[in-house]
Amino acid sequence: MSNTKDKYSTVHYYNYLQLDKLLDAQHTRSGTTAEEAAHEETLFIIIHQVYELWFKQIAHELRSVIDMFDRDNVDEKNIGTAVSRLQRVIEIQKVLIGQIRVLETMTPLDFLDFRNYLFPASGFQSFQFRIVEVMLGLQEKKRLNYNNHRYASVFPEAQQKQLEELQNHGSLFAAVESWLERTPFLQFGNFDFLKHYRRAVEAMLNKEQEAIKASDYLDEEEKVMRLRMLGSTDTYFESVLDPKVHEELCKEGKMRLSYRATVAALLINLYRDEPILHGPYQMLVSLIDIDELFTTWRYRHAQMVLRMLGRKIGTGGSSGHDYLRETALKHQIYTDLHNISTLLIPRSELPELPVELKKELGFYFSHR
Amino acid sequence: MSNTKDKYSTVHYYNYLQLDKLLDAQHTRSGTTAEEAAHEETLFIIIHQVYELWFKQIAHELRSVIDMFDRDNVDEKNIGTAVSRLQRVIEIQKVLIGQIRVLETMTPLDFLDFRNYLFPASGFQSFQFRIVEVMLGLQEKKRLNYNNHRYASVFPEAQQKQLEELQNHGSLFAAVESWLERTPFLQFGNFDFLKHYRRAVEAMLNKEQEAIKASDYLDEEEKVMRLRMLGSTDTYFESVLDPKVHEELCKEGKMRLSYRATVAALLINLYRDEPILHGPYQMLVSLIDIDELFTTWRYRHAQMVLRMLGRKIGTGGSSGHDYLRETALKHQIYTDLHNISTLLIPRSELPELPVELKKELGFYFSHR
Amino acid sequence: MSNTKDKYSTVHYYNYLQLDKLLDAQHTRSGTTAEEAAHEETLFIIIHQVYELWFKQIAHELRSVIDMFDRDNVDEKNIGTAVSRLQRVIEIQKVLIGQIRVLETMTPLDFLDFRNYLFPASGFQSFQFRIVEVMLGLQEKKRLNYNNHRYASVFPEAQQKQLEELQNHGSLFAAVESWLERTPFLQFGNFDFLKHYRRAVEAMLNKEQEAIKASDYLDEEEKVMRLRMLGSTDTYFESVLDPKVHEELCKEGKMRLSYRATVAALLINLYRDEPILHGPYQMLVSLIDIDELFTTWRYRHAQMVLRMLGRKIGTGGSSGHDYLRETALKHQIYTDLHNISTLLIPRSELPELPVELKKELGFYFSHR
Amino acid sequence: MSNTKDKYSTVHYYNYLQLDKLLDAQHTRSGTTAEEAAHEETLFIIIHQVYELWFKQIAHELRSVIDMFDRDNVDEKNIGTAVSRLQRVIEIQKVLIGQIRVLETMTPLDFLDFRNYLFPASGFQSFQFRIVEVMLGLQEKKRLNYNNHRYASVFPEAQQKQLEELQNHGSLFAAVESWLERTPFLQFGNFDFLKHYRRAVEAMLNKEQEAIKASDYLDEEEKVMRLRMLGSTDTYFESVLDPKVHEELCKEGKMRLSYRATVAALLINLYRDEPILHGPYQMLVSLIDIDELFTTWRYRHAQMVLRMLGRKIGTGGSSGHDYLRETALKHQIYTDLHNISTLLIPRSELPELPVELKKELGFYFSHR
Repeated sequence: MSNTKDKYSTVHYYNYLQLDKLLDAQHTRSGTTAEEAAHEETLFIIIHQVYELWFKQIAHELRSVIDMFDRDNVDEKNIGTAVSRLQRVIEIQKVLIGQIRVLETMTPLDFLDFRNYLFPASGFQSFQFRIVEVMLGLQEKKRLNYNNHRYASVFPEAQQKQLEELQNHGSLFAAVESWLERTPFLQFGNFDFLKHYRRAVEAMLNKEQEAIKASDYLDEEEKVMRLRMLGSTDTYFESVLDPKVHEELCKEGKMRLSYRATVAALLINLYRDEPILHGPYQMLVSLIDIDELFTTWRYRHAQMVLRMLGRKIGTGGSSGHDYLRETALKHQIYTDLHNISTLLIPRSELPELPVELKKELGFYFSHR
Repeated sequence: MSNTKDKYSTVHYYNYLQLDKLLDAQHTRSGTTAEEAAHEETLFIIIHQVYELWFKQIAHELRSVIDMFDRDNVDEKNIGTAVSRLQRVIEIQKVLIGQIRVLETMTPLDFLDFRNYLFPASGFQSFQFRIVEVMLGLQEKKRLNYNNHRYASVFPEAQQKQLEELQNHGSLFAAVESWLERTPFLQFGNFDFLKHYRRAVEAMLNKEQEAIKASDYLDEEEKVMRLRMLGSTDTYFESVLDPKVHEELCKEGKMRLSYRATVAALLINLYRDEPILHGPYQMLVSLIDIDELFTTWRYRHAQMVLRMLGRKIGTGGSSGHDYLRETALKHQIYTDLHNISTLLIPRSELPELPVELKKELGFYFSHR
Repeated sequence: MSNTKDKYSTVHYYNYLQLDKLLDAQHTRSGTTAEEAAHEETLFIIIHQVYELWFKQIAHELRSVIDMFDRDNVDEKNIGTAVSRLQRVIEIQKVLIGQIRVLETMTPLDFLDFRNYLFPASGFQSFQFRIVEVMLGLQEKKRLNYNNHRYASVFPEAQQKQLEELQNHGSLFAAVESWLERTPFLQFGNFDFLKHYRRAVEAMLNKEQEAIKASDYLDEEEKVMRLRMLGSTDTYFESVLDPKVHEELCKEGKMRLSYRATVAALLINLYRDEPILHGPYQMLVSLIDIDELFTTWRYRHAQMVLRMLGRKIGTGGSSGHDYLRETALKHQIYTDLHNISTLLIPRSELPELPVELKKELGFYFSHR
Repeated sequence: MSNTKDKYSTVHYYNYLQLDKLLDAQHTRSGTTAEEAAHEETLFIIIHQVYELWFKQIAHELRSVIDMFDRDNVDEKNIGTAVSRLQRVIEIQKVLIGQIRVLETMTPLDFLDFRNYLFPASGFQSFQFRIVEVMLGLQEKKRLNYNNHRYASVFPEAQQKQLEELQNHGSLFAAVESWLERTPFLQFGNFDFLKHYRRAVEAMLNKEQEAIKASDYLDEEEKVMRLRMLGSTDTYFESVLDPKVHEELCKEGKMRLSYRATVAALLINLYRDEPILHGPYQMLVSLIDIDELFTTWRYRHAQMVLRMLGRKIGTGGSSGHDYLRETALKHQIYTDLHNISTLLIPRSELPELPVELKKELGFYFSHR
């Protein structure tokens, strides 16, 4: 058999994965030998490195999906591919959340054995995580303010610039928004989607009101309360039925997705059983999933910090738990897609589509 | 506020879920009071009840998918719905596997506290699980023989009949097979899919042979071995290129899916990026996932039994662990779909489709 | 072989699990046949039934643990058993959280197909979940107010009484608290734990202050901010060093665990490596885990409701998402145990225990 | 604020994690730019790097546990720590298994886009995984033979030597075995554990025989079969009751754990409720868990390979799926601990311990 040297001249697991670099990148600061160093510092380093590797992978997927959608003419072949890649991001996110359990096997007391050596480094300094957030569409103005410092100020200037450019051009949010705006089905011949939808909504709300008023079960107080809540839903419908209401909400920072894109997303949700809309529907659901999983991740992260530090301040100077917990919801990006649920009406109330439109939306795999 | 009686005359969580029945169905046999009974028997009952509830749900989903496909003319709208429902089965299976961990919190010694009271009851007597297996397409002749008893003999006659009928008519396997057979794209005008595919396979195998022969890294012994393995792959390609080889393999019980359905499944796998084939591709992947997850479930189940009983015999008289472990692979149903992977060739070698066919396969969501 | 009738006269899987009741308890309201009924209503019923079964199991475990601890003289043999049972609760909770994914395969539109039939039933009406909350130690005064209704008012009187009694006597919180209060190690001969601890804390805080002041990295503004945060940690230490501060915090509703129990929990956390304290430490960690997992469960539940309903009101009349999200943190019970982390100091600063005490705390398994 | 250069002169997230190395270690071979390279190759590299990082962490934990046990006088304080670290390994293993789902989002066709570039690299070349296996106690003679090559031959000589030395001295298996052999409780004054155990076993087997013979439910054929199975369990008991039978089984390669260690493990399992045995019991359960999870990992790995390649040969020249599946069970290490379950008898049949021994085994936390 060939000698050792030869073995590494061709591609070998070891050099393919660059294990020389990878496995030599864990230098504990609490001590340089295994005996000296705090036992758990290795875990602390390695789990964060694993996070960074996964962030790189997520950025790789998001970049490719943005490139597919950030153009005037999205190739339909790509929707399936885009959905698969977003599904991959979702599976990675599940791993990111799941592995918090590994870190939680380190106890608060274990952590104190090396915590002082980390000062003032902090997870706030993960450039890749910021990249992922900005790629997804998080805007600086929406970020939770942290001690009056710009979030990007912890990075070198070149990186600050990179984040800024990414935010201004080509987030996934922007790409999806303009793709939605180009949906060709909102007005089809004589069929005006919004007009039919408005009628259906009114019918549905009337029914619900009647049910509440007629209920033997609810006492007066509860009836009043429920009718009031129904009223507030009502207002929300206006945001899609009336472009001016929508504009107002955008100005107030309560909505972000453009009017036309919102209506398109609604149509896709309502008629997602039509074959041609199935891919786009999966696309929207994937974005909601990703958003939800990052929310969960931030939340679990906050819990873990609480567990590790209690009310102590983080090495980066943050109040840790509280900050992270607040970002969980505040840094959600696709809120407008989540809220589409508010606008849905039962299939039984759904306006029937004209035959020609249904034909356009369908396609036939067998028996032609 | 209304009095108690009224409260339950309208729909209430309690009667909607029939909690009177549900929560009164846990009668321990090791004792009738909490003090007397073995503490862990309650867990044993409840987790099995949870399994049965989920089996019912899985059967509900499979029934609906079979009904969609078990007809000459599958409505394309249904493929998306069918995939979603199979995805739901997949999510349920993940729960079934995950919750084995709960049962494993019961130790072998805990189990011995009430095990004798169960004799001769056994998980072999779960009718619903048999229903699910048969619905998916497991055939009696493929079942691992267990002590020369027919698997169904533990059930009353009426149930035995039900299983038999289900096996003969209308499993998901049969429904999917006939749906695949009707794929209209195998021959399209002058384009003969198999002819092009054969050429591409030959080109690919040649390349691989050359790579092995030319390798500086492999010694002679290894080259011979690899070329031999390549040869065996080669034979496998024949099963799809030559209908007679396929027929022979079916007779020997090594394949089950019909020739035409196999070729269709191959085409769908190779050209799954074409929009119209994306749904069918997701359908096939879902079936593979379900199969794989039941395999994992059986395997984990076997591990758990080993842990609980060691080499002791089960209350149902089975040798437990060994039997279950063997069924893990033997009771796999969609093996032929798994094996499609063997037949795949790189996209770069894929025969180019004629323009008209591509048009048929595509559809256009935006910018028409 | 024996006939069918015989088969069921002895114990059989079918009657052991009472499958006649269990599998006949799914009556859809949107229609009585599979064709008529909304397809997803079955899932909705079954997943909630599964939740109820698991709640019953959790209550079974908690009841047994409370019985072990709710006495003057806790048998040490029981600590191991108690921890195992709490671990089982934890594994069940992971299943509860995981299976939300199954419900999320139902889309908002699917839900609308049968949602109206549920009115006015609601998850607020799960008696067993309330039992679990109260058993763990949730107090009514701590509950998030919901529309000015008492949370228990949805239940019949007998059940309201049951909840009240359970709250007043014998929650797990109370049992654990009094067990902690009896820890014999707080004062041992001449060794006064708190005195030594106070000195160690002061030393540690001084070091941290010096590090901040001496840092080249932080600018003045940041230094001020960090020193301020350190100051607030300082105050927190007072809550354990000064009984009066603790009393004040209890009055304000900011702490709940008694002074003596808090100090005991701190001691257990700091010296958990001593063999005799290992079981008690695992006990405390399990309680924190259970708390954290219910928090996560409520949070995921809130997310799921948002996804399903958007801003619509729930069938029970709740604003759904917002309410649930707020309870996630507010209904946390063992906050004082979580906060012990704040009070921890590095092992290197830990007061050395006197030899006799160490001996008491240890035990010797081998080589005596 | 300080300038960029300063920012990195103190410890920063970026240099602490050595992200320069870590994030520059993904060089695709199918192309050097994102456009050229196969999209999924990045995932393939990154997930394997993540595996390697976790393997390093597992080795770190195992090393520390071996060091604690590989000495004549195990410090009891360490058992709790050892168990926590093995629990950490378990949590990592769950992540390793869970993340296979991420790799499965890559389809077989995606893989073919770059598979040829990997030849002849292979997962067989993971040195760290071999280290972990050998640390746990896997012996070369027990390894599944692969094409007549020694498993270590793919590594440079220095590494081969390292594996050999590790195998000969100081695996966790050996350390645990000698620790078990030193258990002081097997003979205690006049109490001879084995003598009492033998009587209890005989009583139990008699009862089981009677139950089978007296059963109205079983037909003759089944009775014979069950009695035969009971007989084979019987033989298994001999392996612990009779040192010669044990010796014989060891010679045949059917057992590995020494006689004295086996008896000690049995005693710990039977009397694990005694406080002093609780830690040792958790230790044994953790080893079983780790073994079981690696078995599951290999199994899932095998499934994934089947899915990706079907019956194609791997880039390393292996028949992939079959090999991996067989190792799943064959490379199990703590089989003798799994089999302890066979030897357990119900608590009700357990010989009562003498009072003095019980006292030795207990310890008192409160109320002394």
